[in-house]
Amino acid sequence: MDTPLDTLTEQFRRLPGIGIKTARKLAYYMVQQPPEAVEVFISAIRDAKEHMHFCSVCFNLSSQDPCPICSDTSRDRTTICVVETPQDVQAIERSGDYHGLYHVLHGALSPLDGVGVDDLRIKELLQRLGDTEVKEVIIATDPDVEGEATALYLARLLKTAGIRVTRIARGLPMGGDIEYADEATLAGAVANRQDM
Amino acid sequence: MDTPLDTLTEQFRRLPGIGIKTARKLAYYMVQQPPEAVEVFISAIRDAKEHMHFCSVCFNLSSQDPCPICSDTSRDRTTICVVETPQDVQAIERSGDYHGLYHVLHGALSPLDGVGVDDLRIKELLQRLGDTEVKEVIIATDPDVEGEATALYLARLLKTAGIRVTRIARGLPMGGDIEYADEATLAGAVANRQDM
Repeated sequence: MDTPLDTLTEQFRRLPGIGIKTARKLAYYMVQQPPEAVEVFISAIRDAKEHMHFCSVCFNLSSQDPCPICSDTSRDRTTICVVETPQDVQAIERSGDYHGLYHVLHGALSPLDGVGVDDLRIKELLQRLGDTEVKEVIIATDPDVEGEATALYLARLLKTAGIRVTRIARGLPMGGDIEYADEATLAGAVANRQDM
Repeated sequence: MDTPLDTLTEQFRRLPGIGIKTARKLAYYMVQQPPEAVEVFISAIRDAKEHMHFCSVCFNLSSQDPCPICSDTSRDRTTICVVETPQDVQAIERSGDYHGLYHVLHGALSPLDGVGVDDLRIKELLQRLGDTEVKEVIIATDPDVEGEATALYLARLLKTAGIRVTRIARGLPMGGDIEYADEATLAGAVANRQDM
């Protein structure tokens, strides 16, 4: 018979990137925490679930609508950076060098997984482009098969609308090693070379 | 200002073995789950916290008291396996070869971390040994500094009481490689050699 601990382990195991051993460790840790700590954890989940929603403009996750980025009048409203997930927005924001707006697609085209054009926020992106003074769309989907397919699809779609479409550079990561870089990365790094 | 998502990320980060990147991924995943799935997760935590307690005999975690192992009359009551954590009990039970009882110390001696004899369930172990027909105590603390110190301490303590005290074998793990094994493991493997 399954104990409540087994049930909790199974729940942890469903979380992304959590294997059976980590799930067991987390379940044991949780039941051995003081009751107050467990309640704080549960409240944090409830609060986040209740207050975080998709921004109706860019579809980023936010506790405000429009989100703080879309509402920030000091940001460059002529540029939209298109990403796959809210996590990507956070990652680019942490890099600190981008001051335009975002648009979160919530995925990438993947026919094998049944993800088509209508499953992504592409219609909403086109609507935004029609309404606003956007001059450039930076496509920052992941440099993998699905991300590249999505980038190509969007580039074709948006170029017909007369908007400048750019793709984030492929190159060597900081701390990387030329000797061990794969061909596609190296080819991209050479093609994207910059004057010094 | 911290959003509810940041608060949840911070809560996930406090869990053992969860770094900032995994914590972010889990927080984003959680807020994007259907409300029912989130409630199932929360109920699993509440249930486990509410129903899992320490067995009053062996101090293993269980939803019953005494735990199913202590209550199982078919088990060998002359042998007690002493472990550091409830997870260790589960690991040995999964191995399927041990049919005696357990005693969970809830830690190992570690003066640097302020864990002394009185912080472990050693007094309760001595009490059990006094009350019952135990003939052998197998010390299955981890083969690290704290675990070895605890094993030595217990061995001295129990031998004066005239009980057979054994230590789980040190040796090469299944799939291990003699060439890359450390000295202590190899020395143990040779010392613990078995007739074939």
